[in-house]
Amino acid sequence: MTTVRSLHLVSRPEGHPKDSDFEMRDTVAVPLQDGDIRIAVKYLSIDPAMRVWMTEAKSYWPPVPLGDVMRSAGIGEVVESKNPKFNVGSWVSGMTGVRSELVSDGKGMQRFDASRLPHPGWALSIFGATGLTAYFGLTDIGHPKEGEVLVVSAAAGAVGSAVVQIGKALGLKVIGLAGGPDKCAFVKDTLGADACIDYKSENLSAALREHCPDGVDIYFDNVGGDILDAVLKRLRLKARIVLCGGISQYNAGGETRGPANYLSLISARGRMEGFVVIDYLHRAEEAIAAMAPWVAAGKLTSKLDVVEGLENFPEALRRLYTGANFGKQLVQV
Amino acid sequence: MTTVRSLHLVSRPEGHPKDSDFEMRDTVAVPLQDGDIRIAVKYLSIDPAMRVWMTEAKSYWPPVPLGDVMRSAGIGEVVESKNPKFNVGSWVSGMTGVRSELVSDGKGMQRFDASRLPHPGWALSIFGATGLTAYFGLTDIGHPKEGEVLVVSAAAGAVGSAVVQIGKALGLKVIGLAGGPDKCAFVKDTLGADACIDYKSENLSAALREHCPDGVDIYFDNVGGDILDAVLKRLRLKARIVLCGGISQYNAGGETRGPANYLSLISARGRMEGFVVIDYLHRAEEAIAAMAPWVAAGKLTSKLDVVEGLENFPEALRRLYTGANFGKQLVQV
Repeated sequence: MTTVRSLHLVSRPEGHPKDSDFEMRDTVAVPLQDGDIRIAVKYLSIDPAMRVWMTEAKSYWPPVPLGDVMRSAGIGEVVESKNPKFNVGSWVSGMTGVRSELVSDGKGMQRFDASRLPHPGWALSIFGATGLTAYFGLTDIGHPKEGEVLVVSAAAGAVGSAVVQIGKALGLKVIGLAGGPDKCAFVKDTLGADACIDYKSENLSAALREHCPDGVDIYFDNVGGDILDAVLKRLRLKARIVLCGGISQYNAGGETRGPANYLSLISARGRMEGFVVIDYLHRAEEAIAAMAPWVAAGKLTSKLDVVEGLENFPEALRRLYTGANFGKQLVQV
Repeated sequence: MTTVRSLHLVSRPEGHPKDSDFEMRDTVAVPLQDGDIRIAVKYLSIDPAMRVWMTEAKSYWPPVPLGDVMRSAGIGEVVESKNPKFNVGSWVSGMTGVRSELVSDGKGMQRFDASRLPHPGWALSIFGATGLTAYFGLTDIGHPKEGEVLVVSAAAGAVGSAVVQIGKALGLKVIGLAGGPDKCAFVKDTLGADACIDYKSENLSAALREHCPDGVDIYFDNVGGDILDAVLKRLRLKARIVLCGGISQYNAGGETRGPANYLSLISARGRMEGFVVIDYLHRAEEAIAAMAPWVAAGKLTSKLDVVEGLENFPEALRRLYTGANFGKQLVQV
């Protein structure tokens, strides 16, 4: 009998998630029913929204109930199958949860050909929700036009780094924001941004003035806080702010700080618009068709940041909020 | 020789504008050149944006230079004319400034037929920038669809009361917000809102939950602050926030307070968009053509709040920010 390990949410965190907010439980693997598959989970996708799922907050996903296995997207291999649609040995992606093994009837599980990817983890980055978020946020909410100026926060992060590269592929001038010289070098040299502002050491307003002398057409916002406020002061007419997340505020505790300069949207005739990637899942083929040639041409790459061990999930999650991750954060199970 | 009185901005206010921020000056009327008209200013339009013009802030109008006549829209009668396009006795509207008399070459001055209006002041309310702001803000930014739920702040104010009535004429469910029982009764009984929330005495969140059980499709925001934050928590999917102004923040001094709940735009897939009426001046005919039948049918009316005397301009302006005005604030010269 195999043992299945799973990580359960046992308390709602204040501030950064703590190890003690979770509890590892071992159970005995259950036998398959007709139509079931057994998935050995290989990698988990660590996403900023997880912090929101851990609270009672109303969101596009319901809160994870206390005691339940922590919600997570993941990929794995089918190791046993009573479902003709899934052969043993095939790779699948879906909402696996934070566990080593999963029995599923296959609903919501997508097969993918891992042999065609540089690393199976790409199914959770460029060709997963991360890539779809970047692609549809930028195109469907940002409405980019060639030659426009795009600013991207958390540009070395999973979504941000995809947005930078897609922006360049679409002919935009792209200014990234990242923390520290290593990340900034990556954003410029590897991702191809026209410039990258180190928000930890540079004066934000001065740097934005320097790199965007005529203002910002599109701001892809992953962070909120001071960066959002600084960009609001430099909007070009008819600017679009793509609200993807506000990671600087998720662990703030107490009240979120709103963008004090939001009234700049009036003089700029600008727009701030939110979106959620699950609305675009049915259009995944469209995004993949657009991105695959960029991947093939070397214009779109994905840096993975892999933490090993299911038990290190809380630490991997904290890395997102402290900015310690460098690339798409995964946990190898 | 006639004396011309004009009110000059002599210091940039902190908090509410003070009498001492202005200085009245008397000058001798100048003779007309060929092409000129002399306008006896009759009414001035008191607008929330004036507080912004008095600062150094970058806006869609440049700051009023210290020492200059305070900027204002106004209407008046032509009392002397060396311009064949303007007969003596005709009414004009334009940016007159805060003064008793104005010599103009007629550029930027629009003639209007005061005899067709219930009061000449309507040229500064429904058929002036106020009406255009309400009409285009609601239709062009709000994209209303029949049966949707519209919330309007400062609903007893000049723009707000027009938005309420236009919203009803377009078949929306309209919930107003106003301060005090008299204004709320006006918003419901005279303007025809489905309900009006007294933000001074009611619990905002509870009242919004009661009157908008399924959420808010469009929020026409004139005020910002707590009301904006409360509405953000009740957005329906694909909600639109029309950013018209943030009057609660104009006199705040120091930093504007941003909407703490702005991340609700993500889960609601909502949009917050600013606009400025001067972009729509070239489409004034379109708005007037839409609104005139509503006026004729009694669906669209305008309440004027007239303060007498040029010297009372600062007091009239303060009335806007304290909420003392009831209807479109004018100064009768």
